[in-house]
Amino acid sequence: MESGAGAATTPRALPYYVAFSQLLGLTLVAMTGAWLGLYRGGIAWESTLQFNVHPLCMIIGLVFLQADALLVYRVFRNEAKRTTKVLHGLLHVLAFIIALVGLVAVFDYHRKKDYADLYSLHSWCGIVVFVLYFVQWLVGFSFFLFPGVSFTLRSRYRPQHIFFGATIFLFSVSTALLGLKEALLFKLGTKYSTFEPEGVLANVLGLLLACFGMVVVYILTRPEWKRPPQAEEQALSMDFKTLTEGDSPSSQ
Amino acid sequence: MESGAGAATTPRALPYYVAFSQLLGLTLVAMTGAWLGLYRGGIAWESTLQFNVHPLCMIIGLVFLQADALLVYRVFRNEAKRTTKVLHGLLHVLAFIIALVGLVAVFDYHRKKDYADLYSLHSWCGIVVFVLYFVQWLVGFSFFLFPGVSFTLRSRYRPQHIFFGATIFLFSVSTALLGLKEALLFKLGTKYSTFEPEGVLANVLGLLLACFGMVVVYILTRPEWKRPPQAEEQALSMDFKTLTEGDSPSSQ
Repeated sequence: MESGAGAATTPRALPYYVAFSQLLGLTLVAMTGAWLGLYRGGIAWESTLQFNVHPLCMIIGLVFLQADALLVYRVFRNEAKRTTKVLHGLLHVLAFIIALVGLVAVFDYHRKKDYADLYSLHSWCGIVVFVLYFVQWLVGFSFFLFPGVSFTLRSRYRPQHIFFGATIFLFSVSTALLGLKEALLFKLGTKYSTFEPEGVLANVLGLLLACFGMVVVYILTRPEWKRPPQAEEQALSMDFKTLTEGDSPSSQ
Repeated sequence: MESGAGAATTPRALPYYVAFSQLLGLTLVAMTGAWLGLYRGGIAWESTLQFNVHPLCMIIGLVFLQADALLVYRVFRNEAKRTTKVLHGLLHVLAFIIALVGLVAVFDYHRKKDYADLYSLHSWCGIVVFVLYFVQWLVGFSFFLFPGVSFTLRSRYRPQHIFFGATIFLFSVSTALLGLKEALLFKLGTKYSTFEPEGVLANVLGLLLACFGMVVVYILTRPEWKRPPQAEEQALSMDFKTLTEGDSPSSQ
């Protein structure tokens, strides 16, 4: 079988790594649910349990779904570029909305309890991550989905978009680790050092979070696993480049 | 001037990014010193101040020096490969020794105070990072500095070495963030929410840590900033490949 641009090939090891990342991601969501259910009384909007909406939404939105939005280009290798792009953008919108619910939950909880907002390192990192995530989405949308941006401009911005995408994802994972630590220390205090079951469960959750971040970025950074340009895309890009810049496709 | 393999060129923006990373790194070390001096009574080995040796050594060793060891290949672009390699390995040894002192300090402090060891997420992450760092160094040494490893094996392992190097560095930064958070919550408790000067200083230190991690990985991942192979290295590698594998230099 011939390989090269347009050939419907998938690297042999890639599906296993993706499957492992999904298993890890779902385990993270399930463990966060188990932690909140077993040791924090579960989840509700209209009570003190409102706080628990925050960690669950953040793990689902800014960790699991954000990762899956990044992996879209590795998984859907042979679909039309535009379909993959729209799916990438939509998954990020979904992640953003879920994270927004998680953010509203914690601010609302603080307001009802008369707690101060935004004093901790977790909250500072969280706000920075959230703003960066929103800005990255807006800029990404303007460059890649909004029509009329030149081929050269898109090509120049693409590596930055990819770098900041992976960075914001890793920063989200680190912020989640900080939040987990904060939740443990606030509740357990000195009991944390007696290896309470909640502490051990949350520590394992923390290590799995770090592991998930590593596996996802490993998949994203393997050059041989990058989505190959389809034959028709190459032709289209060249046409587009010629049309918008008036120079020959071979002039770069 | 001709460019290409062996030409003594440095990308225009690279020195500014490296200078910025060094400024950030030194600021981190200075701020950690200031934090420990102003709010934690300073540093000593033979008293309760022994604990403070831990954060300072970790920031110098596993954050600042580890980063500089990674940046060696971007900074020393035109020196002989072997010199750069030895400097890379030596900086990692120095970072490891300083981190080891930091580790001994905290275990010794815990022993004297009769505190439990290794119960927190910070300590779990810390031990994992430290072991990974040591293993990465050993494997890196065996592959790249120990003579006799084939050119093909080195080329195959190189991308893994680079990925895990950057990952361990980022994991070190995250672990430092967790440690900072732990130190703040243990001492400040609920006072943390009143925007105590120590809390604000440490939060700023945390954000700078995250920023440092991002800048260093940005420099490392720009493909156009990678160290170009020198003309004589290419020839040598080819000779070596031919000698060890008995095939023609052009056969790959």
